[in-house]
Amino acid sequence: MPKIVDHNKRKIQIAEATWNVIIKEGIEQATVRNIAQASGLSVGAIRYYFASQSELLAFSMDLVSERVLERIKIRKHIKEVNPLDVVTEGIYEVLPIDEDRKIEMEVWLAFSAKVLVDTALRERSNAVYQDMHQGLKKAIYMLQSSNLTKDDIDIELEANRLHALVDGMATHHLLNPEYFTRQQMMDTLNYHLQSLCK
Amino acid sequence: MPKIVDHNKRKIQIAEATWNVIIKEGIEQATVRNIAQASGLSVGAIRYYFASQSELLAFSMDLVSERVLERIKIRKHIKEVNPLDVVTEGIYEVLPIDEDRKIEMEVWLAFSAKVLVDTALRERSNAVYQDMHQGLKKAIYMLQSSNLTKDDIDIELEANRLHALVDGMATHHLLNPEYFTRQQMMDTLNYHLQSLCK
Repeated sequence: MPKIVDHNKRKIQIAEATWNVIIKEGIEQATVRNIAQASGLSVGAIRYYFASQSELLAFSMDLVSERVLERIKIRKHIKEVNPLDVVTEGIYEVLPIDEDRKIEMEVWLAFSAKVLVDTALRERSNAVYQDMHQGLKKAIYMLQSSNLTKDDIDIELEANRLHALVDGMATHHLLNPEYFTRQQMMDTLNYHLQSLCK
Repeated sequence: MPKIVDHNKRKIQIAEATWNVIIKEGIEQATVRNIAQASGLSVGAIRYYFASQSELLAFSMDLVSERVLERIKIRKHIKEVNPLDVVTEGIYEVLPIDEDRKIEMEVWLAFSAKVLVDTALRERSNAVYQDMHQGLKKAIYMLQSSNLTKDDIDIELEANRLHALVDGMATHHLLNPEYFTRQQMMDTLNYHLQSLCK
């Protein structure tokens, strides 16, 4: 079905242009007109693929989480010997440790602020929150069932804590890269994971 | 100097109207025209107090951190017996545990996303980052010098960790209050602080 493939490809092209507008000019500039210009398509073409600006933004937001999940899936095929390494490397996938991940996080941060006033985006943001939460809970469970963790850890509270830590560090590194460097972000994550272990 | 007092009072009134617009309609709607309408002042009056929209936004952003610092200063006069209680209560001041704090955090989140594309705001955001970081480092130091903490804690990494945890939890509670409740936020903070202690 080449037509469907092309259709989806075009939507992704538009979503990526949306990311570019958001990163360079801010989410308030992510209008259909500006996105058309950034993507090299006409306003009409964009309206053909997305009935509304809200739909376009929602698709662009979903694309961030899809990309992250894709990378985590790819990682599953790589067999690390040490469960702690598996968990650490998995969490690196959701931290802004390189340019691609930085772009995704910047777009995500812009969307997060918009979620407060856009109920359509809120539902998607909640779904991503829950997916991420489950993923991190599984990661802690993996450490526990490998008999690596301290005896008294509480899986639910540890998942809350790790989730907040990861998102907080990502935001701090994006907004204050000179004060909270990439290296500090990675050291802090390692320090945290070590603190759960015996 | 009654004139200066009134001048500042009026600026605060305008900044609070800006917060209202941001919370209800999003930061992209925080135009001078909309802020004028929300504050009951004319566009001309607003331009009299703020030369540019950027200056107005910067003042409104500063007001968030000022309010938080004010509350923390007030708390210093209350003598708690237990240093762990002092630290816990101090951190509650920067978490969205009630309506006032929620509003401040929502405004802060909106500004954070804007910082990425507004260099004037970035400088202020960096200053607040450093203030908060120093404050949290002092809090951990207070626990350590009261001989409450485990022997092997690293103050710098603990400050990074607590800072990211606090901002991450605040964002999660704002965006997903049904999944990450106020009680979970407080329990997670207590769990974290307990984990640093002997």
